[in-house]
Amino acid sequence: MLGQIARRRLGLLLLLHGQQRISNGLNRVSFNQLLSKETHRHMQSSFNTSSPISTMSLWPFSFQPRDFSLPNSSWSPEMCKAYDHYNALCDTDTENGEEKKRGPWKKLPSYNRSIKYATGGIHLSKLIQAKARLFTRNVKEQGATFEYVVFVNKEEKSCVCVFQAGRLLEGAPGHVHGGAIATMIDTVTGSLAGYLSGPIMTANLNIDYRSPMPLDSVVLIQSTLDRIEGRKTFITCKVTSTDESKLYTEATALFVSISVGHLFGTRN
Amino acid sequence: MLGQIARRRLGLLLLLHGQQRISNGLNRVSFNQLLSKETHRHMQSSFNTSSPISTMSLWPFSFQPRDFSLPNSSWSPEMCKAYDHYNALCDTDTENGEEKKRGPWKKLPSYNRSIKYATGGIHLSKLIQAKARLFTRNVKEQGATFEYVVFVNKEEKSCVCVFQAGRLLEGAPGHVHGGAIATMIDTVTGSLAGYLSGPIMTANLNIDYRSPMPLDSVVLIQSTLDRIEGRKTFITCKVTSTDESKLYTEATALFVSISVGHLFGTRN
Repeated sequence: MLGQIARRRLGLLLLLHGQQRISNGLNRVSFNQLLSKETHRHMQSSFNTSSPISTMSLWPFSFQPRDFSLPNSSWSPEMCKAYDHYNALCDTDTENGEEKKRGPWKKLPSYNRSIKYATGGIHLSKLIQAKARLFTRNVKEQGATFEYVVFVNKEEKSCVCVFQAGRLLEGAPGHVHGGAIATMIDTVTGSLAGYLSGPIMTANLNIDYRSPMPLDSVVLIQSTLDRIEGRKTFITCKVTSTDESKLYTEATALFVSISVGHLFGTRN
Repeated sequence: MLGQIARRRLGLLLLLHGQQRISNGLNRVSFNQLLSKETHRHMQSSFNTSSPISTMSLWPFSFQPRDFSLPNSSWSPEMCKAYDHYNALCDTDTENGEEKKRGPWKKLPSYNRSIKYATGGIHLSKLIQAKARLFTRNVKEQGATFEYVVFVNKEEKSCVCVFQAGRLLEGAPGHVHGGAIATMIDTVTGSLAGYLSGPIMTANLNIDYRSPMPLDSVVLIQSTLDRIEGRKTFITCKVTSTDESKLYTEATALFVSISVGHLFGTRN
């Protein structure tokens, strides 16, 4: 019990680490991704992200967080096929208790409130709007809005998201709202930037919409690191059909490294 | 009854007008706003948008569409105050049956599925995913996601949106997701472009996030026409606190005029 409390306190410190690193100029950005690289690693080590059923023996809480990026009955055959393709390339397979190297990809878990499931975050989440929910996971009905799963490739410093657009994402009749596409681009490029650079905020999104995307489409959102310059992480992104024959959207994204204190006004 | 059917058929034609105007090159954009200028005008003439309670004596259907941009109990005093400010500047006041000129502003109505409420659109909406809903109006709980109202100023070719960000729009803990802000920017700039240029699709959004926006914030999203060049409509946008002392986001948006046929592959 004491060990649990100690771990939770450590987690809180971990989440709020780097508070002193803030300097002027950083307030001219907005945020995207709060999880630190350390928190990400903790999450990834806590359960097998490449398996459809999470195992969390190291999890410090009494409940299992739900990973919303696992297959469900709303996923179309095309969505399942793309998931299976990248899942088969993930780096470990714990079948029969043995870990086998398979490839350079790693599936990232996806919760409906990131902070709650970071170590110690459950306490912080009560302070910061306990009933808040992640924008992309705020509708309970499976398949109605954003169904997606993100895989990162640490060797290539890239990631790919398989995204199925639900019927509640409509903009023009029968088609996906430009804001829903922007939301997924922010999410995917932010996941890669956060994975590579730790806590970051979105500073710029520049999105070219090339072709309207029908509702129920399954698309690939591929992001690649362009470069890192000091606190700036530049990412490129394209959204295509799963066979990559049709280009829907192209984008660039800029993220700026922050500490968590930046968000809550505790920086100097 | 026959008159109603005729009006509905006319509406369908109106919605699908200009199908022959499509030419090459337009497929390299995505969409935002489908309503034609004519449809917009029809909607505006059908009820008094400046009044909190809609009156729709000219409405051709047997039910009244709900305008989601009218005040409700989830609106904070700051949201109500900003709404009242712009509502008082709207162009007509039908109190006591008399119309009085008050100012150059006009409130746009906001539905949870635009096409359904355009003249004749109810038939089309059954063909095009009857259960689809507009992305920004897809959560029934008032105040949980996007609460917003858009006013246009036809003299200044500008518009302003009062936006209250609900707790289900979270990105980083306690703050609004960059994708939710992008969604509102697309919505507001698209409303202005659609009002000025008729049916359009979003071709580019370039968004600079300047400062993180806490959940429950009430902000102004102000958009202005930059220029129109042929089929291209260029819009600028800024997101600030209601007293305009704090800048959250700046953006430019490019929209390209389309015909509805473009969306459904009936163009040449």
